[in-house]
Amino acid sequence: MTTLRVPTYEDVVAAAARIDGHAHRTPVLTSRTADAELGARVFFKCENFQRIGAFKFRGAYNALARFDERQRRAGVVAFSSGNHAQAISLAATLLGLPAVIVMPHDAPAAKVAATKGYGATVVVYDRYREDREAIGKKLAEERGMTLIPPYDHPDVIAGQGTAAKELIEEVGALDALFVCLGGGGLLAGSALAARALAPACKIFGVEPEAGNDGQQSFRSGRIVSIETPRTIADGAQTLHLGEHTFPIIRSEVADIFTATDAELVAAMRFFAERMKMIVEPTGTLGFAAARRMRVELAGQRVGILISGGNIDLSRFAELVGAGPG
Amino acid sequence: MTTLRVPTYEDVVAAAARIDGHAHRTPVLTSRTADAELGARVFFKCENFQRIGAFKFRGAYNALARFDERQRRAGVVAFSSGNHAQAISLAATLLGLPAVIVMPHDAPAAKVAATKGYGATVVVYDRYREDREAIGKKLAEERGMTLIPPYDHPDVIAGQGTAAKELIEEVGALDALFVCLGGGGLLAGSALAARALAPACKIFGVEPEAGNDGQQSFRSGRIVSIETPRTIADGAQTLHLGEHTFPIIRSEVADIFTATDAELVAAMRFFAERMKMIVEPTGTLGFAAARRMRVELAGQRVGILISGGNIDLSRFAELVGAGPG
Repeated sequence: MTTLRVPTYEDVVAAAARIDGHAHRTPVLTSRTADAELGARVFFKCENFQRIGAFKFRGAYNALARFDERQRRAGVVAFSSGNHAQAISLAATLLGLPAVIVMPHDAPAAKVAATKGYGATVVVYDRYREDREAIGKKLAEERGMTLIPPYDHPDVIAGQGTAAKELIEEVGALDALFVCLGGGGLLAGSALAARALAPACKIFGVEPEAGNDGQQSFRSGRIVSIETPRTIADGAQTLHLGEHTFPIIRSEVADIFTATDAELVAAMRFFAERMKMIVEPTGTLGFAAARRMRVELAGQRVGILISGGNIDLSRFAELVGAGPG
Repeated sequence: MTTLRVPTYEDVVAAAARIDGHAHRTPVLTSRTADAELGARVFFKCENFQRIGAFKFRGAYNALARFDERQRRAGVVAFSSGNHAQAISLAATLLGLPAVIVMPHDAPAAKVAATKGYGATVVVYDRYREDREAIGKKLAEERGMTLIPPYDHPDVIAGQGTAAKELIEEVGALDALFVCLGGGGLLAGSALAARALAPACKIFGVEPEAGNDGQQSFRSGRIVSIETPRTIADGAQTLHLGEHTFPIIRSEVADIFTATDAELVAAMRFFAERMKMIVEPTGTLGFAAARRMRVELAGQRVGILISGGNIDLSRFAELVGAGPG
């Protein structure tokens, strides 16, 4: 058994100092309509307005900023076709170190272009014929590059925790905090921050109903793996929690809920119509679950982490444009 | 000739105190991509996140908060099928006074519903057969209600000026400030604030190319009226500047530019893709004009007022969803 470096709230504080002036301090928005619907006071922490359009920039920048001189020279490698790819690419460019992002051959052209646009080199692999782990290992061995995974890493978790830290420092203690859940980086980091800053706050994870591995893991006490779930929440299609994220979630989180794709679309429409924001499906998980809990949340101060806003406009239009006005 | 009560920066300061805790202090967002495109440092003041989805709430609340006891009891009347209607309706509800909004019979059902939803009584008139001025006068005479116009009123102008005041207080002095222009309430108020807080700041108004009455008025020195212009910028389809707004604009504004509907759609797409925001066509006028001025703005600190985000989702999807990703 390997020894894990377990991140703590002190690591979140150190991460906040490292990202200061590099990550956006994103706004906290409120909505009278959301308050009325939930009978609560709701605070939305808007990471869709973060650099690269998602919270992932926080963890990526924090991890790369901790590289030593040898690591900086050799650079970073990451596997991702999503927000982590863009986060690592931009963070590496800002810190002046080389980055290689390994993407499947069928990744959307727009995502490949965006990742290249931030400065990284993109290496494409055939996901039916090649093993991305082997590709990563080879890059790491041949060039001495450091692999930064999308969630299962103490510096990534600590970086993601800075969003909840900013939220609670800005609005004060919360009674409940809803966080979307894929691999658990944002949830684990948020739990560290909320536990320290608002000890009585109940922390809830929310994942797509079609991929409830987190809920199964939380309830059974061991990491459960699933097949790639069919859901529009592409940021939460992870197959299992991480060995760094799971213990924190298991010990600090009150419960894990799920939301259906239909609920995510309804929440996207709410954010667009009432709050004038574009939120990607994954980013709506927290609010979608909170809407089911009007009775429990009545009179409470509720934080909702909106994770990101990266969705093709044509896809966004398709999902929200056709529905009831 | 009637004597005008001319609003000053002191009125903007008083308005800021009045709306404090009632209007949102909207966020200022930045975008690395916008900075790179303009070769400038760009600050977006996001009134699309204001209550009712537009800056109009500021002026409406300020005007109604100044009512005396007799005016409060009798209430307010307004003519509008747009953001002013919703602003007056919500402000009146919050201040506990009756409101009647006079709307044309063919106003979109969604706007009528939204205005009623905020608490006002809606009176519909047939715009081909009835005179809305006469209806308003009758309400004012019979019930003693006070008419609050959408822009040509000193308290409305002073209230609108609080957005630019917040912007400059938050980010510091600006070299240039771009403000969309319909009847000129936001532009005149912004000019009062910017002139006081950043005396060297050039203030630019921007209106739809199809309806450049403001530009004609500014350049000729007298208020020019036009026919209802054909433009997607429905918030800037006013026919002429006001007798309160024009003198301030004429004396404090550096120039008035125009933007085409195609430029507005391109700017809407930019805001959606790069900044994850829904901005109504009128709200993009400032940025659309700034994009034409890369040379002049190079190295400068540029403020852009985004006026609102109220657009039907189906219409939004139609305008931005079909274009190039």
